[in-house]
Amino acid sequence: MPGLWQDAMDHAVILARKAGEIVRDAVQNDLKIMCKSSSVDLVTKTDQNVEQLIITSVKEKFPEHRFIGEESVAAGEPCVLTDKPTWIIDPVDGTTNFVHGYPFVGISIGFAVNKTLEFGVVYSCIEDKMYTAQKGKGAFCNGQPLNVSDQKEINQSIVATEFGSDRDPEVVAKIFSSMRKILCLPVHGIRGVGSAAINMCLVASGCVEAYYEIGVHCWDIAAGAVIVSEAGGVLKDVEGGPMDLMSRRVVAANNEVIAERIIKEIEAFPPVRDDVPVNPIQ
Amino acid sequence: MPGLWQDAMDHAVILARKAGEIVRDAVQNDLKIMCKSSSVDLVTKTDQNVEQLIITSVKEKFPEHRFIGEESVAAGEPCVLTDKPTWIIDPVDGTTNFVHGYPFVGISIGFAVNKTLEFGVVYSCIEDKMYTAQKGKGAFCNGQPLNVSDQKEINQSIVATEFGSDRDPEVVAKIFSSMRKILCLPVHGIRGVGSAAINMCLVASGCVEAYYEIGVHCWDIAAGAVIVSEAGGVLKDVEGGPMDLMSRRVVAANNEVIAERIIKEIEAFPPVRDDVPVNPIQ
Repeated sequence: MPGLWQDAMDHAVILARKAGEIVRDAVQNDLKIMCKSSSVDLVTKTDQNVEQLIITSVKEKFPEHRFIGEESVAAGEPCVLTDKPTWIIDPVDGTTNFVHGYPFVGISIGFAVNKTLEFGVVYSCIEDKMYTAQKGKGAFCNGQPLNVSDQKEINQSIVATEFGSDRDPEVVAKIFSSMRKILCLPVHGIRGVGSAAINMCLVASGCVEAYYEIGVHCWDIAAGAVIVSEAGGVLKDVEGGPMDLMSRRVVAANNEVIAERIIKEIEAFPPVRDDVPVNPIQ
Repeated sequence: MPGLWQDAMDHAVILARKAGEIVRDAVQNDLKIMCKSSSVDLVTKTDQNVEQLIITSVKEKFPEHRFIGEESVAAGEPCVLTDKPTWIIDPVDGTTNFVHGYPFVGISIGFAVNKTLEFGVVYSCIEDKMYTAQKGKGAFCNGQPLNVSDQKEINQSIVATEFGSDRDPEVVAKIFSSMRKILCLPVHGIRGVGSAAINMCLVASGCVEAYYEIGVHCWDIAAGAVIVSEAGGVLKDVEGGPMDLMSRRVVAANNEVIAERIIKEIEAFPPVRDDVPVNPIQ
């Protein structure tokens, strides 16, 4: 039986693939013909083009739908989730990877109605892996069903996280402190591919037991959240309790036991929320 | 013109592919039908089988050649590099990844004569990427030539490293301290796929500018060293000076500038060398 928002979901998959082809071409061809040190321009251009391509196409097909996109927000659009059907888009998740040709770059498209996530699509375009999930319909990679790991022992687990892009010494100190405490639980290892969306897909695939990060944005995790959840995993805030999409903090784990165990070790701090107005009224 | 040890090199590629198929099947099929918590037995069995397959086949074809293999050394064989033609083998590089189905597992085969590395083969078997290099003949991935990044600015670079498997608090403290100093140089990011051999291939591919690690073994880095070098990169000790294959320390970088810059930040320590006899005479 098709899902409630099947039309939108099908369109998201088509757009993610089209966007992924553009991004992949840029990584494999354009990066090669330009000096990498000027590649920041390429990523900016590609990000904006891909986001516009997605938004323009969705607007034609679903004129009532709203958008939260990384590039649109950067350009001054509000980052507010209303009850209306809303597409939450990261055109290039893993920007640093993109610039370097490091092979994990995702197109992330989440979709929420009444502030509830209904589906998520993450296309890891260099690997050519299309991750999809619809609420209540399971999670898939290239059509194959995904299941989280059944591991309940933290010391048999791999945890994914990232160092992030903030180089403020206090933030870095907290990030390192959390990582070190988790490493010494001990765990089997700490990994991170440099893309929040793809890290979440690795939780869904069962290769890592958990992923956590402070400093992500709603467009990095909206699609991945549905994929983790539909693969049987759980989503939490880094201090416990439910994940807040706009809080810029996330724990995605295979189960409650693993989630709670790493939450105990994370030194939480509150980044500026995604839904704080850019120019608040004084 | 074929290289001096072309026959051995060709045989290494055939064996790496055969071994990779066995390892990939184990990850994709055997892991699925067993509880992951008992997967340590699977990895041990696979490691030993694959190493024996390689050694048996090489012995038939090149009866005079010697071997240094991770599993043979674990079983008590000496880890000594003589002037004789020697195959330096890691049947499964990225053991933790293997256990979890994390998609970076390498078969690493290096080859040295007169203590000089002559060729290296790293087969990243889940990705199906065959990295090869022969001294003086360039480095390749699936037949395509590899070149290191031309980046000379450390703050435009990605550095790869690993947390390692040692959980001794003093070792962990040094590893974290080095990582933090390098992150805050600043660099674009820190990555690590969980396999020394594949990290080195990523340096050769130009996706990361450098890789360093303390605690690796000669079989993790012998093949990768040839691949990095033939892609135009440099190999150093973590305190500067030439790489010592048996020292369990390595810096592989795209150029001297980047290598020297990260060497300044690494808190070096000396692990027990690979060539220390297991039962030294008192």
